Amino acid sequence: MNVNFAERAHNHNWKLDPIVRSLLDTDFYKLLMLQFIWKNFPKTHVTSEIHNRTLTVRLADRISAAALRDQLDHVRNLRLRRSELVWLTGNTFYGTKQIFHPDFLHWLEHDFRLSDYEIIEPQQGPNVGQLIIRFSGLWTEVTMWEVYSLAIVSEMKTRSALSTLNELELDVLYARAKTRLWDKIELLRQVPDLRLSDFGTRRRHSFLWQEYCVQALATALNGDPRNPASEARFTGTSNTALAYKHDLEAIGTNAHELPMALAALASQGSDDDLRSSQYRVLELWRQSYNNELLILLPDTFGTTQFLQNAPDWVARWTGERVDSKDPFIAGDEYIAWLLQHGQDPRTKRLIASDGLDASTIVDLHHHFHHRIRFSAGWGTLLTNDFRDCHPRGPGAGQDTFDPISLVCKLTSADGIPTVKLSDNPRKSTGPADAISRYGRVFNSPILPELPVLV
Amino acid sequence: MNVNFAERAHNHNWKLDPIVRSLLDTDFYKLLMLQFIWKNFPKTHVTSEIHNRTLTVRLADRISAAALRDQLDHVRNLRLRRSELVWLTGNTFYGTKQIFHPDFLHWLEHDFRLSDYEIIEPQQGPNVGQLIIRFSGLWTEVTMWEVYSLAIVSEMKTRSALSTLNELELDVLYARAKTRLWDKIELLRQVPDLRLSDFGTRRRHSFLWQEYCVQALATALNGDPRNPASEARFTGTSNTALAYKHDLEAIGTNAHELPMALAALASQGSDDDLRSSQYRVLELWRQSYNNELLILLPDTFGTTQFLQNAPDWVARWTGERVDSKDPFIAGDEYIAWLLQHGQDPRTKRLIASDGLDASTIVDLHHHFHHRIRFSAGWGTLLTNDFRDCHPRGPGAGQDTFDPISLVCKLTSADGIPTVKLSDNPRKSTGPADAISRYGRVFNSPILPELPVLV
Repeated sequence: MNVNFAERAHNHNWKLDPIVRSLLDTDFYKLLMLQFIWKNFPKTHVTSEIHNRTLTVRLADRISAAALRDQLDHVRNLRLRRSELVWLTGNTFYGTKQIFHPDFLHWLEHDFRLSDYEIIEPQQGPNVGQLIIRFSGLWTEVTMWEVYSLAIVSEMKTRSALSTLNELELDVLYARAKTRLWDKIELLRQVPDLRLSDFGTRRRHSFLWQEYCVQALATALNGDPRNPASEARFTGTSNTALAYKHDLEAIGTNAHELPMALAALASQGSDDDLRSSQYRVLELWRQSYNNELLILLPDTFGTTQFLQNAPDWVARWTGERVDSKDPFIAGDEYIAWLLQHGQDPRTKRLIASDGLDASTIVDLHHHFHHRIRFSAGWGTLLTNDFRDCHPRGPGAGQDTFDPISLVCKLTSADGIPTVKLSDNPRKSTGPADAISRYGRVFNSPILPELPVLV
Repeated sequence: MNVNFAERAHNHNWKLDPIVRSLLDTDFYKLLMLQFIWKNFPKTHVTSEIHNRTLTVRLADRISAAALRDQLDHVRNLRLRRSELVWLTGNTFYGTKQIFHPDFLHWLEHDFRLSDYEIIEPQQGPNVGQLIIRFSGLWTEVTMWEVYSLAIVSEMKTRSALSTLNELELDVLYARAKTRLWDKIELLRQVPDLRLSDFGTRRRHSFLWQEYCVQALATALNGDPRNPASEARFTGTSNTALAYKHDLEAIGTNAHELPMALAALASQGSDDDLRSSQYRVLELWRQSYNNELLILLPDTFGTTQFLQNAPDWVARWTGERVDSKDPFIAGDEYIAWLLQHGQDPRTKRLIASDGLDASTIVDLHHHFHHRIRFSAGWGTLLTNDFRDCHPRGPGAGQDTFDPISLVCKLTSADGIPTVKLSDNPRKSTGPADAISRYGRVFNSPILPELPVLV
């Protein structure tokens, strides 16, 4: 009797179920970096590429290039909605009003566009069976592709796996994943002063699942009804659309693409120019953001050399994000370095963000609590942990929901190849000769390879 | 845009969310017994009572008598729908057509009614805090109350516990219960020749959850797509409404109320009359069902005396249901007894139905496979296993979804108290002096008490 005829007909009419439905469906730091690039490097051309480090998963067998193109083109046609712009204009981020300049927002509304792209299906070499997407254009046109394209490929892989399941199996899959998620939340809920946020946009199972995870964390960890003034343990989400929709803090500052691009541009000059570019980016950032948002990301060319060679003013920054080094070691190293530079670590922030899961987050909290203000950026194992949840598993071929190590990295700036050394050789990128020069210039020791799950 | 205004308004208008919505929402054996009573005992008056053997759970704290009355009255106003009657008339049950006589169906359509009832809230004694419902009237008016009232009380207890949870907690609860259910189904799926059916109506979490469990079993265990002729491992459900709705076999034959009533009526006579009443009920059943549906239920006054004293023709019946004795022991005893009487156990059926869970079902299957045709009637731990699923658990007060031992038993027939001895003293019912006489007459040994979970 209560059939919604219009809805049912509409569901028949779907041409596309878009994965990214808003330009805000990206990590907040992309918007901060976009403003930085718009202000400082409006003419720089770059290329970037998305590829899959988990070579055992042949993406081209699961995702058609045509369907991928439909999803990417949908994003190219999106515009910021008026209410989204009003929110970016009027909202307070990190306690700061008007973090986005009116001129930038005007440009974002009227002139922002995403670059063209090409989809490459290698027929030989290690990437046979993979899909590579290459973006080229002005840096302001390319940078935003990173999170959109990663989230699209990740969710298309999910949809391919979902399409093999019947209704009951789909239900079982999500029941298992929810049970898993809730067990993790139970673990985190035992720890009173924990601080964590969602960093899981790029390799999420799907947008709706990320939204579910974020709402679960917010409900379970925040707002003790007996103590409304209690501090939020779930401090926010990197996903700007979710922060907007659910009144959460948008979290994040910057990423490796800034020091990588600045190093590439500096690499035409002397070794000293190259070496000092990793601090020049900090200086530019600080100026661009009026001494706010001062979080170091020291691992682009090796953390130890970064800290040892840093000018004194670097120690006055607010904190450090650890992204490729063992976070227990990296945090201890940062604390020791702060003390050497006369800084009180208890006033500084340490953010771990590399492949974390709930138990490691708890261990890290206990290791650093009262020594430094620790917080965790919980990524893929928050928003895409479906390991062993396959309804026909465990068994061969039942790992189709397991997350893969998808990355999107800058490959060149103004025609010059970019390099990332990182603290984990498995995460290094760039041509061999350039990696070799950077290794010499930055005098970075060869660290042991750590397994990369996601 | 696609708001269904009518549905939304309708949801605001709800006066009652009925628990029992069809007179078919009962165990199939109640309909078979109703026809038996209608045919053989149309003038007999009985009383029956529902009470909760789990005294630690104070039902009156969770269920209001007024709301209970609303639910019970709703059932009293139900009538069989035309299509339900057509189905009862035309469907084949246990391979037999027209199992229900046209005269009975005519009576069921036009003259069937449910008796009045009273709700008792004891103010002292062991049942303080409990709700007892007493039904009195013609046996044909009282008998059907059993499953309706048990299912109503069980689901009202569920609703009371659900009302304390927020939306996320509700979601977590069901995710955990589904994960639990699926783990059990995985276990059962490993066993190729297993046979089981749903016996979980009376103490179910809710109607919708029972329906979910039944559909999950049917989907997972039946219809191997590579072998459409493969035998169903999930053989059906005792719930007539679900059998009707989902094209499943309706399962069940008869229960203790028949030998209990016949014994009470015979107890006015000699000890021999009383003793032989347990076989007279079989004779009447066989005549009523034209030599079909010949499943023994031997434990009403003790299984061992029942088998030892049985006339030879009893061994020719099709099988036995074990409901209160350890099913490994009871099955072995039945097999030995069949062999003594020259019967081949491999042609007989053994049905276990008392507090089973998946692992015990698998163990029983392996114990009896190739020796007798074993099948399991899986009840409360199929349709109401929410132990440790509470979203705020484990902890005190987080067991509100645990099943309780709700029973509805005949207490008198034509004014004479009824007695059940059973193979487990914890399941015996009746006044002490009557139990004492029955114990002497049936010469039933005192067996050890077994814990009663459900």
